[in-house]
Amino acid sequence: MTITAHFAAGADRWPDWQEPLRAAFAEAGLDVTLTDSAPDPTAVDYIIYAPGSPLQDLSPFTNCKAVLNIWAGVERIVGNPTLRMPLCRMVDPSLSEGMVDYVTGHVLRYHLDIDAHIAGQDGVWRHERVPPLARERPVAMLGLGALGQACARALLAHGFPVLGWSRTPRDVAGVECRAGADGLTETLARAQIVVTLLPQTQETQNIIDARALATLARGAYLINPGRGPLIDDDALIAALDTGQLAHATLDVFREEPLPPEHPFWAHPRVTVTPHIAAETRPHTAARVIAENIRRGEAGEPFLNQVDTDRGY
Amino acid sequence: MTITAHFAAGADRWPDWQEPLRAAFAEAGLDVTLTDSAPDPTAVDYIIYAPGSPLQDLSPFTNCKAVLNIWAGVERIVGNPTLRMPLCRMVDPSLSEGMVDYVTGHVLRYHLDIDAHIAGQDGVWRHERVPPLARERPVAMLGLGALGQACARALLAHGFPVLGWSRTPRDVAGVECRAGADGLTETLARAQIVVTLLPQTQETQNIIDARALATLARGAYLINPGRGPLIDDDALIAALDTGQLAHATLDVFREEPLPPEHPFWAHPRVTVTPHIAAETRPHTAARVIAENIRRGEAGEPFLNQVDTDRGY
Repeated sequence: MTITAHFAAGADRWPDWQEPLRAAFAEAGLDVTLTDSAPDPTAVDYIIYAPGSPLQDLSPFTNCKAVLNIWAGVERIVGNPTLRMPLCRMVDPSLSEGMVDYVTGHVLRYHLDIDAHIAGQDGVWRHERVPPLARERPVAMLGLGALGQACARALLAHGFPVLGWSRTPRDVAGVECRAGADGLTETLARAQIVVTLLPQTQETQNIIDARALATLARGAYLINPGRGPLIDDDALIAALDTGQLAHATLDVFREEPLPPEHPFWAHPRVTVTPHIAAETRPHTAARVIAENIRRGEAGEPFLNQVDTDRGY
Repeated sequence: MTITAHFAAGADRWPDWQEPLRAAFAEAGLDVTLTDSAPDPTAVDYIIYAPGSPLQDLSPFTNCKAVLNIWAGVERIVGNPTLRMPLCRMVDPSLSEGMVDYVTGHVLRYHLDIDAHIAGQDGVWRHERVPPLARERPVAMLGLGALGQACARALLAHGFPVLGWSRTPRDVAGVECRAGADGLTETLARAQIVVTLLPQTQETQNIIDARALATLARGAYLINPGRGPLIDDDALIAALDTGQLAHATLDVFREEPLPPEHPFWAHPRVTVTPHIAAETRPHTAARVIAENIRRGEAGEPFLNQVDTDRGY
């Protein structure tokens, strides 16, 4: 019997997800009718969902076996009173790969001063501008969770010395690890490139403030693919204006989309990227969705099912 | 007794080399008087040299024990009739590290479309532009010598599928290796990013010609840190103009410095870098110089001594 899956993760995502989902269903040997409109809600077996979807009343979907979220975050659906079926969040193994690509790519961009080469196509042969080697360029990784560790390992493999910092002490092979307030000062003081991959908590709020920025060696670089509130925006702009910080690449912001009038957009020493460092990739996430449908049909427990009482 | 080393590698290099050399001599426990002027040539024990140096008549240096070249290439000194002392070329282990930095950095730059982010700071949040993962982006490495293999290994470690090509068959772990003309066509047809690290020979001349460029998938990228003559410049510009090739980053040229009027400089789809991908780094090369002076003083054979009959 055909399984009916209803794509309710937003009309703007449908073009990118349709093919990957069909391919993943075929790969898993599942006979799924995939639709972005559900004429008969009672015929729907699975809802493929994203927070912020126009679909908020789930009560007509009386035979739905699970809501399968395409994002990791479920804050905006878990409390929905019409959610009476299991909810699964997305744990996409490619998130970590995408983050490693982003962090390594932007670290090497700063390391090689690629921006200066892109901008400096003026016919002047500046042969004297040879960058140091990776092993001469210490990189600080603030945050040593799963993503921070994956990035630290990739940077180490490439030859960069990695200075790790976390709120509570961690031990990561090959990384010079520090913790606590003193450890942060020492880590920042020795880094030429700082990557912030900390979780957003009360303690990490504004961790990159005027004092932290002043601790850096002059001309250091900052990459923030972690969380917007880690950064004190005004302090960052002040440090960029004086040249204390040479450049910043920011992927996350206090308000997203970053408003067009925010000074980050126009600042010559800032690159804004639109929260893409660890975006769900349809091709890999579709396989997680397919696996959960297979499990549902086989009566096996779902992957990543949310405990609605705990909220994650 | 103090050893006298005469720096004759060009006045413009003296500021960058002076300190690294003194540090390397100290590290090796050598008592060296380092000078960029040699009032008494007969007092000079070692000449630190670069091809193109104003010093061409070596005959007054009657007590010189060796000429220590700071470059790998010795074509412009090996035939000098006044060269009667041993000549050593530079084999700097950091050359390979610098090349890996350059190749990995520019591959990731293309992979992440970093140029578009740098240029696109217009306040528009283009969240839909998520790059594929490294494992979905095949990179072709043309040339599997020491540098090509080092770069291939770094790209593999990062997750990129690597398609290797060499004139004569090679076997590199993890790399899908091909050789010969048919192998080249197949390699190019499947690559999204092509890196050319071939030696300059009769056979590799213009290997990236109109036919090779037409074989690529539309929108591919080219990185040439190998040799200028590998590329047919006119064919490259034609392929960029039609969009068949999306962008090229070129570090080496038929004529260097690349003349200011060369169309590569002004082309919006070309980044010229000034032959820096595998530049000698004073800090690491100075240690090789110091080791050779130590060997000379100890009566041990020099490292990388040139066979002047063979010419390398």
